[in-house]
Amino acid sequence: MTTADHLSTTFAALADPTRRAILARLSSGEAAVTELAEPFEMSLPAVSKHLKVLERAGLIARSREAQWRPCQLDAGPLKDVADWIEHYRRFWTESFDRLDDYLHRLKTKEKKHARQ
Amino acid sequence: MTTADHLSTTFAALADPTRRAILARLSSGEAAVTELAEPFEMSLPAVSKHLKVLERAGLIARSREAQWRPCQLDAGPLKDVADWIEHYRRFWTESFDRLDDYLHRLKTKEKKHARQ
Repeated sequence: MTTADHLSTTFAALADPTRRAILARLSSGEAAVTELAEPFEMSLPAVSKHLKVLERAGLIARSREAQWRPCQLDAGPLKDVADWIEHYRRFWTESFDRLDDYLHRLKTKEKKHARQ
Repeated sequence: MTTADHLSTTFAALADPTRRAILARLSSGEAAVTELAEPFEMSLPAVSKHLKVLERAGLIARSREAQWRPCQLDAGPLKDVADWIEHYRRFWTESFDRLDDYLHRLKTKEKKHARQ
């Protein structure tokens, strides 16, 4: 799989609040499928479907050792997303700088008016 | 729209190599739809469809002033993605640290063997 396609698979896997909630849960430690299903009031097959999407994207790994096959977070693909997004950082930093400038000018203006 | 849904819309919009290429092009300045279509050998309706997805996700804005209605990058939603991903940074940093440790141990072992 090329990096471009790999990124598309990762982004598609992240485009769902339940799947992001599963990753958030796994960020505090490995968990069994039944544990992951609990907070969502979802059927096990529904959760398994989400887990398959995450597994295919390489975002989780399932242990083959233990019989309960716990799921673990694999943050590798998230690093690729972070690297991709880094290119755009200057855009939101710039727009916050512009907002900051604007608020500063507004304050100076207000002070002037107060003095008059 | 809640932040969670907004993130899903952003991730879904980013899950396509053509749409990411359009954003990359716009990161070097605004462009007309015809200009954006050129490198992809795509029909204008196909490009327009991608632009609509990006616009709905708030990733691009189209000027209403000029008659050619140039597209501009709007990095706001990308900041939300960067904020979301920040929570997971420690995971890939940790795994690189572990790799670094492993390589260090390997080197020390090799040196020992060379001396014997």
